[in-house]
Amino acid sequence: MTDFKATRQLFQIPDGMTYLVGNSLGPMPHTAQTRVENLMKRDWANQIVGGWRSGGENKQGWFVQPGQIGDRIGKLIGAPAGSTIVGDTLSLKVYQALGAALAMRPDRKIILSDAGNFPTDLYMVQSLIKSLRQGHELKIVGPHKIAEHLNEQVAALLITEVDYRTSQLHSMKDLTAKAHKVGALTVWDLAHSAGALPIDVTETQADFAVGCTYKFLNGGPGAPAFIYVAPKHLSQTEPLLAGWMGHAQPFDFDTEYKPSPTIERMRVGTPPVLGMAALDGALDVWDQVELSDIRTKTIELGQMLVELIGEKRPQLKLESPVDPHKRGSHLAFSHPNGYAIVQALIADKIMADFRAPDTIRFAITPLYIGAEDLAYAVDKLAHILASDSWDKPQFMAMGKVT
Amino acid sequence: MTDFKATRQLFQIPDGMTYLVGNSLGPMPHTAQTRVENLMKRDWANQIVGGWRSGGENKQGWFVQPGQIGDRIGKLIGAPAGSTIVGDTLSLKVYQALGAALAMRPDRKIILSDAGNFPTDLYMVQSLIKSLRQGHELKIVGPHKIAEHLNEQVAALLITEVDYRTSQLHSMKDLTAKAHKVGALTVWDLAHSAGALPIDVTETQADFAVGCTYKFLNGGPGAPAFIYVAPKHLSQTEPLLAGWMGHAQPFDFDTEYKPSPTIERMRVGTPPVLGMAALDGALDVWDQVELSDIRTKTIELGQMLVELIGEKRPQLKLESPVDPHKRGSHLAFSHPNGYAIVQALIADKIMADFRAPDTIRFAITPLYIGAEDLAYAVDKLAHILASDSWDKPQFMAMGKVT
Repeated sequence: MTDFKATRQLFQIPDGMTYLVGNSLGPMPHTAQTRVENLMKRDWANQIVGGWRSGGENKQGWFVQPGQIGDRIGKLIGAPAGSTIVGDTLSLKVYQALGAALAMRPDRKIILSDAGNFPTDLYMVQSLIKSLRQGHELKIVGPHKIAEHLNEQVAALLITEVDYRTSQLHSMKDLTAKAHKVGALTVWDLAHSAGALPIDVTETQADFAVGCTYKFLNGGPGAPAFIYVAPKHLSQTEPLLAGWMGHAQPFDFDTEYKPSPTIERMRVGTPPVLGMAALDGALDVWDQVELSDIRTKTIELGQMLVELIGEKRPQLKLESPVDPHKRGSHLAFSHPNGYAIVQALIADKIMADFRAPDTIRFAITPLYIGAEDLAYAVDKLAHILASDSWDKPQFMAMGKVT
Repeated sequence: MTDFKATRQLFQIPDGMTYLVGNSLGPMPHTAQTRVENLMKRDWANQIVGGWRSGGENKQGWFVQPGQIGDRIGKLIGAPAGSTIVGDTLSLKVYQALGAALAMRPDRKIILSDAGNFPTDLYMVQSLIKSLRQGHELKIVGPHKIAEHLNEQVAALLITEVDYRTSQLHSMKDLTAKAHKVGALTVWDLAHSAGALPIDVTETQADFAVGCTYKFLNGGPGAPAFIYVAPKHLSQTEPLLAGWMGHAQPFDFDTEYKPSPTIERMRVGTPPVLGMAALDGALDVWDQVELSDIRTKTIELGQMLVELIGEKRPQLKLESPVDPHKRGSHLAFSHPNGYAIVQALIADKIMADFRAPDTIRFAITPLYIGAEDLAYAVDKLAHILASDSWDKPQFMAMGKVT
């Protein structure tokens, strides 16, 4: 049983701050800080280039870290060892995963996605289509209409398990089964689910999965992304962005690219060692955490927040699914003055975020947020709305949230 | 006039170590360490997600750092403000630059490169050709035969200014002029020249340039790469990997990609904030350094090394150009037992590196290497060879240098 009082102590959170934006960037785990210090003072400072062969906490070298850290993430998403690797950014991993899927379905031209997908996923698809020039088409449908658009024309379904706006949770199992029934492949974006809820890419038979590590995994700003390839697809998986780190023998310095037979083929260039150090440290948190406990607690706290807001401020409308099992780890509410309200909350050190035109998001992250934090936040929120303190000029300057 | 005694104090170099591998990974500047500490303890720990808008030394936020750091690098390569940006890896920036160049020469199918190009550049070209399926062909010629193969069929010349093996220095000015004469574009890889010698992408009229920052710029292991786009090409430059950070309005969350009108279009995903912090700190070194002084001193020290080795150990054969103006900042020597010799040097804390089959490389980096270091290294080298201490089993285990 996860001890959430204990996990809170693993994070550095400023005094007086109620941090409800873990869906954007997780706070700093102390172990991430230690790991980065070790990297700087011990590895880089003292081994310099030798760190590639003997750096890192296990002294096995930075070179092998993408796979080792990948395996640590793999455990959190139900992936067997050797099927997950870290590197680059989520945008690039979406590109690689989708490109590989399309190459496996050369006779199909439809890429199905939904309007709730994060824009960068859609942009990367657009640029992939443009590069490939094979007449692919990106079909974007409403989040509730994916199943009905899965048919024999679809090469791949690209979908984010938890909608970044509404928090709607798609069923990986059902949609993957439906996709496979019509012969389509699936690319799951786990940006808003890795570290937030139990995931099992093996049991759900996902073909490819990608995700970022700076949200619920607390890996740090700009931490590297991850990619999972179902083992049965690995040998046919085209890396698409074929850099030397993915070569079967990178240090042979051949002029011809030959992909590694392992998941290493999804590597591209030199890995981001500082980012990997922070992420590797952040993942230590998960040694004492059960994702099923996180999920249970997230649902409990989420229901509490919905009820508290409903009681105290019914003018905030819940935009997330009412059924807690059908949503992820954040809650979205709408209010015509959402932007100004969020600014007033932030001025009170209640960190929430806003998405145009009118959505306020609160992330529920039991690792470091408890019932008392939510009660405090809702009290402040009620106070702000009652006193109209949000209705001051400094909070009303709408403009773009950039 | 650069004070090289003073610059040496800017770096953390382990006691007793003679570091001649700055062409692979530069040592840690103290300012890089400070900057990373500030990022961890001040920005991430205390501002958390707020760092995107107010993090960094200038408190202008992590979001704008790719362009700001790009401009700092731009000054070192002769690029005007707003034409250079950092992110991702060199492999990916090669891909973007070459892809953009090919799109600007749709009727030409030859990509010219040379056998001395670092393999990842060639691999990325191969995967780009495969994705584009437009019948492009990668033509790899000998390093001395580039000019004669530049003709009207060539869409783009992709070339590394300093050959990673021999240190041969190609003339950016002459080859770019020759390329332009036949209507071809140039993509210059500055991996082994940025921070090592004066570069002027403006004066030489380079079309695109890319580079890494962890070698002579000392940005740290896996530090982000940079890309330069000649201002006259910017509006026609296709980003190819179109991520949200390159969007004209990333926070509008449009479903359609629209490239930024600025160099920001070459951004892809969320930038690697930790890597940027170290790099930004490392660039402080250049505030007190003139690249022309570095070049003068590199040539002086390089000549000294060639002469010392020639006197003491003539069995090491110089593989770099004899004319110091025709080579970059490292010197390559061959010896049939090169691998074992390098291992023996490393055991004596003389850090050098080896490239199969028989090449020993020594990097000349005046920022932290002086005449006394080279004299010491050559004494050790002479001792190793004279005593045959390199001929021991632990040094003779050839195998792959991985």
